Amino acid sequence: MEPRKLAADLFDELAEATHDGVGITRASYGEGEAFAHGAVARAARSLGLEVETDPACNTYMTLPGADRAAAAVIIGSHLDSVAEGGNFDGAAGVVAGLAAIASLQESGTAPGRDIRVMGIRAEESAWFGTSYIGSRAALGALPPGATETARRADTGRTLAEHMREAGGDPDALEPPFLDARRVHSFLEVHIEQGPVLVEQGLPVGIVTGIRGNRRLPAARCLGAYSHCGGMPRRSRQDAVMAVMDLIARLDTLWDEREAAGEDFAFTVGKLATDPERHAMTIVPGECRFSLDMRSLDASFLDDLEGRVAEAAREIEARRGVAFELGAPTRAAPGVLDETIRSGLLDCARRLDIPHNEMASGASHDSAAFAAAGVPTAMLFVRNPNGSHNPDEAMELDDFMAAVTILTRWLATEGARA
Amino acid sequence: MEPRKLAADLFDELAEATHDGVGITRASYGEGEAFAHGAVARAARSLGLEVETDPACNTYMTLPGADRAAAAVIIGSHLDSVAEGGNFDGAAGVVAGLAAIASLQESGTAPGRDIRVMGIRAEESAWFGTSYIGSRAALGALPPGATETARRADTGRTLAEHMREAGGDPDALEPPFLDARRVHSFLEVHIEQGPVLVEQGLPVGIVTGIRGNRRLPAARCLGAYSHCGGMPRRSRQDAVMAVMDLIARLDTLWDEREAAGEDFAFTVGKLATDPERHAMTIVPGECRFSLDMRSLDASFLDDLEGRVAEAAREIEARRGVAFELGAPTRAAPGVLDETIRSGLLDCARRLDIPHNEMASGASHDSAAFAAAGVPTAMLFVRNPNGSHNPDEAMELDDFMAAVTILTRWLATEGARA
Repeated sequence: MEPRKLAADLFDELAEATHDGVGITRASYGEGEAFAHGAVARAARSLGLEVETDPACNTYMTLPGADRAAAAVIIGSHLDSVAEGGNFDGAAGVVAGLAAIASLQESGTAPGRDIRVMGIRAEESAWFGTSYIGSRAALGALPPGATETARRADTGRTLAEHMREAGGDPDALEPPFLDARRVHSFLEVHIEQGPVLVEQGLPVGIVTGIRGNRRLPAARCLGAYSHCGGMPRRSRQDAVMAVMDLIARLDTLWDEREAAGEDFAFTVGKLATDPERHAMTIVPGECRFSLDMRSLDASFLDDLEGRVAEAAREIEARRGVAFELGAPTRAAPGVLDETIRSGLLDCARRLDIPHNEMASGASHDSAAFAAAGVPTAMLFVRNPNGSHNPDEAMELDDFMAAVTILTRWLATEGARA
Repeated sequence: MEPRKLAADLFDELAEATHDGVGITRASYGEGEAFAHGAVARAARSLGLEVETDPACNTYMTLPGADRAAAAVIIGSHLDSVAEGGNFDGAAGVVAGLAAIASLQESGTAPGRDIRVMGIRAEESAWFGTSYIGSRAALGALPPGATETARRADTGRTLAEHMREAGGDPDALEPPFLDARRVHSFLEVHIEQGPVLVEQGLPVGIVTGIRGNRRLPAARCLGAYSHCGGMPRRSRQDAVMAVMDLIARLDTLWDEREAAGEDFAFTVGKLATDPERHAMTIVPGECRFSLDMRSLDASFLDDLEGRVAEAAREIEARRGVAFELGAPTRAAPGVLDETIRSGLLDCARRLDIPHNEMASGASHDSAAFAAAGVPTAMLFVRNPNGSHNPDEAMELDDFMAAVTILTRWLATEGARA
């Protein structure tokens, strides 16, 4: 089938079937996600691919290579979405794999090794509070017990229950379906979730690395409530001012990193005084906040925990408060494979497709594959209105530019005969 | 009756009758407040004072002076409390008036003019969302319509309904019960609502002025929600960072004022991202906050509105957000009478009672009398644990030190024969 038409039809089919009235909803191990797995499997069968699933309900669609014993190239991404999200976040990576295979077939190119398109389950942390469930399950990297402890936010039921309901088998995740040492490479096409490619007027980005993070999901600062009129400044124990100080320190650190051309970002997404106790004329005795800090630099992230703790101690002494930061969650930066990246750059140049090289601030299934030791690469596609909202607006021309680079790389590098 | 015993008995009676299990509750125009008015009236009758009430249910307890046509000295404060508050905030000022009269009687001192002790209704803004209801009603300074528009937070019923239920007549507030031009002076004894006298080891403070304020009860900053991983710093419209910037500006202004020995204080008592939309990994698109700013300096307060607006505009341009500050509420500083203040200072010195001179950060009924043009003065009493909580801990010795100064001033200055 003509690759562009295959992609356009699949995107339309997905959008129509999983529209929730506002945007797209494909809950992890839910109805919309199941529909998407079925739709891509139907398209794969129409291309003559072998279709199978693993116990975590990931879908594998394989174009056999000349040497079936050789390690396979995997091209994939996730098929779930956030609630009221967009049609392309995730799905574009699966459709890209099928379109690349259709391109190879169209040109009569037979691969030297298997090319597997992987439709991955449950990447979005919005549903089960944890990311990369499908890819980590396939790689044997889910934390022990996670299928029983993780519960879907909207249903309250466990990951194991949802996995069984979707036709999977949470008791059969070990040994893992994929042996990371037997995967040649993992490539993921994904819409950019920010405005960089739009601003630069480029259809495609070749990703240099995936930021790791340190997160404080539920930090708080405790001071003392007091009558704001009567309490002199030196005697206040103002939790809001203390949190302000900590945020200002991080903002200054961001200034410094930016000036030095070094990577960093942080976000205080949640912030609140206690609605049961706060008042306009009372010095706030408590302030809760979340903190998400990201960088490509693993050693900087390691240092960051100490820096934040040190700043908190200094502010505690000066403001008469106590920070309870809680245990940070940690994700290492995703180190992408230099050889594949330079191969993709080379293809883009030869094809004369305008592109940049940029880091991924957001997390992706690629990070799970990279962490498992699989040589991994990513391509970003320009997307005007951000992701995780109904206004995602990837153009098919831009998408096909990424598919063309991917196809060229498969034919000349990754899966050449 | 012996003044110290009168005070001790009254404080005990009030505490016993209006304890709510946690602290003291005497709701404005509620049961506990009514009990307190009854209790002070009984004590006043036992001293032989004339007792009357006005249409707003304020209680007046008068020791007649030699010249009954002369303007009276009023000594007073409020008898309501916040919920789960303390026993002394307000009540101490009424009891002080009665104890001072008992002292004059004990020493056989007959005043030259009437001395009226005023038990004032509804000073705490916690109940009706507005302050000084009783004193402003007595002075004819309640805003038009306030008895119908103000509603008690816990009952939802109007001030007029509550006033009627307490035996008052909201339709008879005009002409005002007190003619400010016919009031010689207003003196208020009040616990200090901060730690200054405790820190300085002094029983009594003589108040230099009452801070005015500018308040933004419900300000907010609007940015744009976006995926924090994908969104570069320059493209973020982060409402939390914008509010941080505004708070940091005010903190720097406070530094400057403090260094210059000029008065200022501000408090962000309420602060919150939107619990319906916020998330750890989403750049916050909205942040709500309250702002209370105080100073003794009226022209500084006037300028402050413009400074805050200007800072907001600058931050809007830099952070890509929009502030909706809302209309500020305004209270002018309470200018206290220099002659009375120096008279009180002189009495304290002659009595060898250790004291300081300090501003009042909190608001008081005195501000309503000062605003009406009545020569006004205040005495603070040391109080270790702040106010508006069950742990207020005024010592009777400290209280009697203030009563002694007040009595001396009445005998030698305010109401001398």
